[in-house]
Amino acid sequence: MENVNLAEKFSGFTSHWDPKIVGEVNGHDVKVVKFRGSFVWHRHEQEDELFLVHKGCFTMEFRDRHVALEEGEFIIVPRGTEHRPVAEEEVHVLLFEPATTVNTGDAESDQTVNEPERI
Amino acid sequence: MENVNLAEKFSGFTSHWDPKIVGEVNGHDVKVVKFRGSFVWHRHEQEDELFLVHKGCFTMEFRDRHVALEEGEFIIVPRGTEHRPVAEEEVHVLLFEPATTVNTGDAESDQTVNEPERI
Repeated sequence: MENVNLAEKFSGFTSHWDPKIVGEVNGHDVKVVKFRGSFVWHRHEQEDELFLVHKGCFTMEFRDRHVALEEGEFIIVPRGTEHRPVAEEEVHVLLFEPATTVNTGDAESDQTVNEPERI
Repeated sequence: MENVNLAEKFSGFTSHWDPKIVGEVNGHDVKVVKFRGSFVWHRHEQEDELFLVHKGCFTMEFRDRHVALEEGEFIIVPRGTEHRPVAEEEVHVLLFEPATTVNTGDAESDQTVNEPERI
């Protein structure tokens, strides 16, 4: 049982759309990820996903609207809902999601990371 | 699907050791809570608990050692592990735990909150 410093974890990698596992709680992973640019449209059939902005800002796009997210804000995307994160500038995001969750959901692409690294 | 601003949620109440539900994800609650002083020693038999410091600092005491937590740091307390949060000054904490989790675990006391409010 150690304290985990988020800034330190974020400083440990530079890649985008490449989630890293930093903790596990009740079958859920705590992940850190850097976004920049546009992700692929996708949905997760079985998993709700929480996105908490640690540093920066981004927009979560849904098919019918966009939600702007700033530092210290989170959004929960319910299972089955198509979404696409878009970040004009680099943003640091904390994710809570079931350990089974693949980042691109139903949309396998070159952005898919099947086995995130633990850091 | 709305953005939830943590600072705004924390500004909505002043009580200590009184968790408020601010989101739900896969049967887990996202809660905000203010600590000040010492909590009761307790454990959760079935639930791991994540504590993320939003503002301030506190110490998570275990029977054999203490872990200091600062802003932007989290700790995961595994199920079955006795613990006690202690905060010299007020601290704002985000919790991520199964919706079944009662704050005082096996140690019912006047600090027990059986049905946290949703804010």
